[in-house]
Amino acid sequence: MEAAVATMSVYRPKALPAVLSGSSKLPARCFHFLSRSAPLLGNFKTQQAIPRKSSHGFLLFVRSSGSITAKPSSEVRKKRGDLRPDEKLRALRDLFSRPGIGIDAYVIPSQDAHQSEFIAECFMRRAYISGFTGSAGTAVVTKEKAALWTDGRYFLQAEKQLSPSWALMRAGNIGVPTTGEWLNDVLAPGCRVGIDPFLFSSDAAEELKEVISKKNLELVYIYDFNLVDEIWKESRPKAPKKSVRVHDISYAGLDVSSKLSTLRSDLIEAGSSAIVISMLDEIAWLLNLRGNDVPHSPVMYAYLIVEIDGAKLFIDNSKVNPEVMAHLQNSGVELRPYESIISEIEGLGAKGVQLWLDKSTVNAAIVDTYRSALDKYLGSIRNKSKSKTVAKECSSCPSEEPTGIYRVSPITFAKAVKNHAELEGMRNSHLRDAAALAQFWAWLEAEIHKNVALTEVEVADKLLQFRADQAGFMDTSFDTISGSGANGAVIHYKPEPESCSVVDADKLFLLDSGAQYIDGTTDITRTVHFGEPTFRQKECFTRVLQGHIALDQAVFPENTPGFVLDAFARSFLWKIGLDYRHGTGHGVGAALNVHEGPQSISFRFGNMTPLQKGMVISNEPGYYEDHSFGIRIENLLIVKEVVTPNNFGGFGYLGFEKLTFVPIQSKLLDLSLMSDAEVNWLNDYHSQVWDKVSPMLDGVTLQWLRNNTQPLKKQ
Amino acid sequence: MEAAVATMSVYRPKALPAVLSGSSKLPARCFHFLSRSAPLLGNFKTQQAIPRKSSHGFLLFVRSSGSITAKPSSEVRKKRGDLRPDEKLRALRDLFSRPGIGIDAYVIPSQDAHQSEFIAECFMRRAYISGFTGSAGTAVVTKEKAALWTDGRYFLQAEKQLSPSWALMRAGNIGVPTTGEWLNDVLAPGCRVGIDPFLFSSDAAEELKEVISKKNLELVYIYDFNLVDEIWKESRPKAPKKSVRVHDISYAGLDVSSKLSTLRSDLIEAGSSAIVISMLDEIAWLLNLRGNDVPHSPVMYAYLIVEIDGAKLFIDNSKVNPEVMAHLQNSGVELRPYESIISEIEGLGAKGVQLWLDKSTVNAAIVDTYRSALDKYLGSIRNKSKSKTVAKECSSCPSEEPTGIYRVSPITFAKAVKNHAELEGMRNSHLRDAAALAQFWAWLEAEIHKNVALTEVEVADKLLQFRADQAGFMDTSFDTISGSGANGAVIHYKPEPESCSVVDADKLFLLDSGAQYIDGTTDITRTVHFGEPTFRQKECFTRVLQGHIALDQAVFPENTPGFVLDAFARSFLWKIGLDYRHGTGHGVGAALNVHEGPQSISFRFGNMTPLQKGMVISNEPGYYEDHSFGIRIENLLIVKEVVTPNNFGGFGYLGFEKLTFVPIQSKLLDLSLMSDAEVNWLNDYHSQVWDKVSPMLDGVTLQWLRNNTQPLKKQ
Repeated sequence: MEAAVATMSVYRPKALPAVLSGSSKLPARCFHFLSRSAPLLGNFKTQQAIPRKSSHGFLLFVRSSGSITAKPSSEVRKKRGDLRPDEKLRALRDLFSRPGIGIDAYVIPSQDAHQSEFIAECFMRRAYISGFTGSAGTAVVTKEKAALWTDGRYFLQAEKQLSPSWALMRAGNIGVPTTGEWLNDVLAPGCRVGIDPFLFSSDAAEELKEVISKKNLELVYIYDFNLVDEIWKESRPKAPKKSVRVHDISYAGLDVSSKLSTLRSDLIEAGSSAIVISMLDEIAWLLNLRGNDVPHSPVMYAYLIVEIDGAKLFIDNSKVNPEVMAHLQNSGVELRPYESIISEIEGLGAKGVQLWLDKSTVNAAIVDTYRSALDKYLGSIRNKSKSKTVAKECSSCPSEEPTGIYRVSPITFAKAVKNHAELEGMRNSHLRDAAALAQFWAWLEAEIHKNVALTEVEVADKLLQFRADQAGFMDTSFDTISGSGANGAVIHYKPEPESCSVVDADKLFLLDSGAQYIDGTTDITRTVHFGEPTFRQKECFTRVLQGHIALDQAVFPENTPGFVLDAFARSFLWKIGLDYRHGTGHGVGAALNVHEGPQSISFRFGNMTPLQKGMVISNEPGYYEDHSFGIRIENLLIVKEVVTPNNFGGFGYLGFEKLTFVPIQSKLLDLSLMSDAEVNWLNDYHSQVWDKVSPMLDGVTLQWLRNNTQPLKKQ
Repeated sequence: MEAAVATMSVYRPKALPAVLSGSSKLPARCFHFLSRSAPLLGNFKTQQAIPRKSSHGFLLFVRSSGSITAKPSSEVRKKRGDLRPDEKLRALRDLFSRPGIGIDAYVIPSQDAHQSEFIAECFMRRAYISGFTGSAGTAVVTKEKAALWTDGRYFLQAEKQLSPSWALMRAGNIGVPTTGEWLNDVLAPGCRVGIDPFLFSSDAAEELKEVISKKNLELVYIYDFNLVDEIWKESRPKAPKKSVRVHDISYAGLDVSSKLSTLRSDLIEAGSSAIVISMLDEIAWLLNLRGNDVPHSPVMYAYLIVEIDGAKLFIDNSKVNPEVMAHLQNSGVELRPYESIISEIEGLGAKGVQLWLDKSTVNAAIVDTYRSALDKYLGSIRNKSKSKTVAKECSSCPSEEPTGIYRVSPITFAKAVKNHAELEGMRNSHLRDAAALAQFWAWLEAEIHKNVALTEVEVADKLLQFRADQAGFMDTSFDTISGSGANGAVIHYKPEPESCSVVDADKLFLLDSGAQYIDGTTDITRTVHFGEPTFRQKECFTRVLQGHIALDQAVFPENTPGFVLDAFARSFLWKIGLDYRHGTGHGVGAALNVHEGPQSISFRFGNMTPLQKGMVISNEPGYYEDHSFGIRIENLLIVKEVVTPNNFGGFGYLGFEKLTFVPIQSKLLDLSLMSDAEVNWLNDYHSQVWDKVSPMLDGVTLQWLRNNTQPLKKQ
């Protein structure tokens, strides 16, 4: 999948564009959680997802080898509330003056409580209240006004979907205020701005608080219920309840006890005795579990608290079957109800536990609850020590007062550096994925040449079929970007059945897709032409490939952050005044999220994380000509040690191993632009593709692979 | 000249290594100034520099076309005091208890009062007191101890030069404290640490103050005299008094009034009404003046205050001849005695003037004086407004209380972006420099092949002769680095007549040198072999050249900071596990300092200054094999606009124009490693060298140039 566009923080793919958050420095991270005491759970109407026919005739819920169902991206549909837009706003505003609330505005972000990139439908509150269904945006409602912020990708869609009651705030355009600035403009000093503290990271909430304090506005945390849920009522989709499964040790490589033991060493070293983990992929990785609560990411809604002598998983226990229960007990992990996280945090604070919290990801509800409880604890301690002389030598007393330890979660880095089994799973799943892609491309070329009219959505759905036939297939890893001609130039294009284009034999076709397998996660982009590409298209494609090759072939010393390599991928485009507005590489999880940190390869220079042996990262330069065509060539790479004849300064040197083995269309190349070394790179790559993938194919697909891996020769 | 080594801040070449300054973030900048009221000027013994014969027989003070004399680097000798090392320490400690002083330690940095890279001998107080003559170091003397900090370049030299009374602090080695940490260790709480506030930038002094405050040590500014000068007495060299000259408008391109007018617009925009400029090259650039007070840099000791309606140059008026006086009056610049800067600053503060001060360069004496005076002014204003109602509508009153504006000097950037005339001067002087280098290399090859034994110093002195014969020659632009064999691997090698090596026909020879001409500044490095290079040497040289070519050929969008391009220069070395420990490019002044900011090309990522059209920067990758050989290939480049067939995103694209035209030795190349494009680059470069330089040559030199610019062909 393409790396985030310029306005996005690339190494934190789930971050809101900074322009939406009110600061160019700290991207807001907004989360959701049902409720502090889950009073609304009873409101959910039981609603089972059932297979249904698509407009083009085949079953969309494909049952794979496991018990997991995958839906084509095109079929993930939002539930609409039964209220009209203005009725929703009126109902929401009525709640402002409810006793105990008393607010003048309410901010509704896009996120769930865990900063997830893909969220369950029941948490899509911003889409429900505003009618705007794009993936990024923030809604703000005051007693008189309603405004929605989104970025350039979604201006057209928002214009169509918003009712006249809503003002569209085109974030990033000159003169458009941030949400905080706008609140400062439209509210009188002393007004109260309400938020659901589960929907904001602690950092994001503190930032909003600071901005609006300039106008003497007060930020109010409403814990007890989410105001949108109150009006959504029965039409609100049910919370996901899919079973959790154990991620087999043969894929995970390291057992849970070992991972917990390493984490506990980190805690002890930091002087902490417990950590709260709220990122869903971190919980899945640490506990060797996988879930099915959201599309594309094999995770389950949960919180995890790891203490020195135990661990508690906060999860709906109906998702936990006996096998998972035994697996957890085996590592000393106890179950707690998902909703009890806040009371548990309160208890830890009240005991003065020194808690490790990553304020950039953990929500404001948790951090705020901990701090309040801790303050009470410290107050009582001080009172005691005033009233009587406390024995200072108490061995279990921490030498200093607990204040909380606010640092990046240590799981982030541990998860990014894959072990041998994880890398083997990634390699194996990529080969099966390559076989599916070869079948797909052979099929598509034949259909196009038979003049069959296929839409971008139909093509994406067919690719899903080929993938679903592969062993261990689980899901797509993101919404397939299937763009013919000008649609390929829309970096985050998502074709919809009712509006998408037919794949045009005379235009470039860009296909960015990926899959979740039981043993690994894939993400690949190829750009092809079914007819005769123009000179311009060939020149651009060749330069994109030259950048791809330069990055693929890079060798660099240990401790090099990814951004140092970014210019390698752009330099050939730069020579003719071209560039692309997204990063070049993002981290990828092992049978986990298709976007993960902390590493990245980007023109943004803030991410100092060094690339490390065992990390997986995408290599995806592109070029996009508005209203005309888009080009992207993406492989996934493993960062590996390279044996060099020297090791200057005692440093090891690193390079890349390719994971992706699918032909790159040579018809699109202008060989006269390429060096011998570049042509050799392509020939060598295609020879590896043939060797690795041909044993899995036969018939016309084998022939297609043979045709598309023939060595090229410069004239 | 090579860019600074890893421990140095590259884009601020005059910065102390951070390890010496007590912080890894803010490099200390230390300055000197004679005295607040110049009581010591009378102590200088009149001492004229006179021409003398060198050990190898030719006149070292070469008189050029102008009135300027240049000394070979090897001949700049320090005056030694007449006291023995221990006597100096005893005398210094005696001063600690003088009435009005009362200190327990004194810190003696290397700098003058202006953060100059090259300083006058009378300001080399650290060398005088410690006996250590290296260019970087800090001495600290307490009542019992004396310690000298320097970096890895100088450990051996310092060991030789320091008496047993001095402890050598090997800065950068593990466990070695910074000066501040050491003071905290050896002094008791409450002790007083003295500094000469003219010798520290305001930032550096504040940082030291903060570090030692942790141990309750007090930092004391001693304004009235420098303690080292007090004991140096008659043997102290005389302050430089060389005449200032006007830098002709044909070279400067822009008259002083225009430059002042732009600066005043900057002041008004910032809400400031005056600025203090203390960097000597900024004063020279702004006033179109050049001086001769220090070796290598054509600057004069002075301060400049520019106000909205006037400007004052603080300078010893014996340096100002009638022509310069008329030139200054023409632009409304008045003269003031150099020593009166502090009383002038006091006056500005006392009037509540909103002064612009670059705290990273302006010394602590000036900033501290301004703040004290301003505090008094504000106190009196507040008293007045208390005692009677002041008319608020007073039009000349600033709307807010003045506090000083502490920002980077706006001259830094204006000076870095050269105008047409400055670039023409750089181009022309580089051609004359190239002719001198061609004569030199032709001569050297012939001598070596005749088996004449020449030392590294003799060779450097001969190069100076060839340069001095060129029109407009003024001086060398830094100490020539002339290193045969293993000496070439010492990045900051400075050969000394008594200890240097003979240039060995069977080893690599690295020569990094530069000149000051009336119209421009040069800096070039070539590495050659007079016999048969080894395979290893050819491989390394070829990869260094490949990096040089990749950077030279880079095209990049506007707003790209230099560090983005740094990896281009290293990538070919990285492929075989090699690297170099210095930056790749530094800014160069136009007939000014050979090292200037703010731009750089470096693996250090802190410098976000974009490369801009009109900047001059060096391209100097290298490789150094300890105890064996050193390779560096350096050209100067102009950043220029590149006409590209596209301008993606509406951005202009930039590239480089070469300034340096001297052959690169093709004997050292392994053509099998090079692409056709790289060989074409070299052939094209040599063809340009021939076209541009051959008209200035004849005889054996012309033949040498012809031989060394022949096109190469890959087999």
